[in-house]
Amino acid sequence: MKKGLLIVYTGKGKGKTTAALGSIFRAMGHGFRVCVIQFIKGSWKYGELKSAERFSDLLDFHVMGRGFTWESDKIEEDIKVARDAWNFAKDVILSAKYQMVVLDELTYLIKYKMVSEEEIVNFLSNRPKDLHIIVTGRDASESLIKSADLVTEMLSIKHPYDDGVKAQKGIEY
Amino acid sequence: MKKGLLIVYTGKGKGKTTAALGSIFRAMGHGFRVCVIQFIKGSWKYGELKSAERFSDLLDFHVMGRGFTWESDKIEEDIKVARDAWNFAKDVILSAKYQMVVLDELTYLIKYKMVSEEEIVNFLSNRPKDLHIIVTGRDASESLIKSADLVTEMLSIKHPYDDGVKAQKGIEY
Repeated sequence: MKKGLLIVYTGKGKGKTTAALGSIFRAMGHGFRVCVIQFIKGSWKYGELKSAERFSDLLDFHVMGRGFTWESDKIEEDIKVARDAWNFAKDVILSAKYQMVVLDELTYLIKYKMVSEEEIVNFLSNRPKDLHIIVTGRDASESLIKSADLVTEMLSIKHPYDDGVKAQKGIEY
Repeated sequence: MKKGLLIVYTGKGKGKTTAALGSIFRAMGHGFRVCVIQFIKGSWKYGELKSAERFSDLLDFHVMGRGFTWESDKIEEDIKVARDAWNFAKDVILSAKYQMVVLDELTYLIKYKMVSEEEIVNFLSNRPKDLHIIVTGRDASESLIKSADLVTEMLSIKHPYDDGVKAQKGIEY
């Protein structure tokens, strides 16, 4: 049975969004139309946005949410922003315009209970048959993992910040 | 101190080469010149090769080695192929033509003792100061990890093959 996969890149290590980038790079080579929805403003940086311009025929990109720390004192506003983002994602998923949809940092919406886990997992489980969905973010919930087809945990073995190395152009952004 | 990083993506999970793809996607957005050396023939598939064509101004790509199982009975020939590939990689690294070099599946050369671990780790540790190097492959050795700046282990939590799902266009290749 051939069907679209639900792929989850989670864990505390570097490489989740990076692997999603690599996944769309591969998929677009086959001419797949791809939509990326970024749930945390700023999770995509200059480098990838600039390269994305070379795929403007295939790639749509939407920044939702805000550059949040989730320590806002405007919690109701945060919830509204998160819900709007999720509703937008649902429309994109149901639009039948894409072969792959990336929900970058979606796990944070579940973790901080901005949108109910049950609603997200149910909706993703009932996605259109041939659509591939990639979810990234730390702390993917158990039921999200259970409903996914492919789950990789990125485990940080060593990080340059440990040695006081600063974030660098072309690597971190 | 700003210097090029040695990044290792290892582990048994999916996403090592994919994260390397994402890394070059980001780096090329900054106009970095990138060289990818593939130590196992076939580790890069149609999708990424096709997308790579859009970056022909920045990206050089070399397939070394063979599509090996390392169960060859022509072990001396295998060693020669591996050593030639490694020598080629050294020339590329020293060429000063690139800001990022990807050594895809290099760990296999160490694991199967095709090239000595000490030689590889010493050489990579003494790389040109501003060059970023990305090494991918399972079972990265301890001393490679020790000499790296950033190491992420991709851990397989769930894999679609477990459920009998076949490899799919745009995902696996």
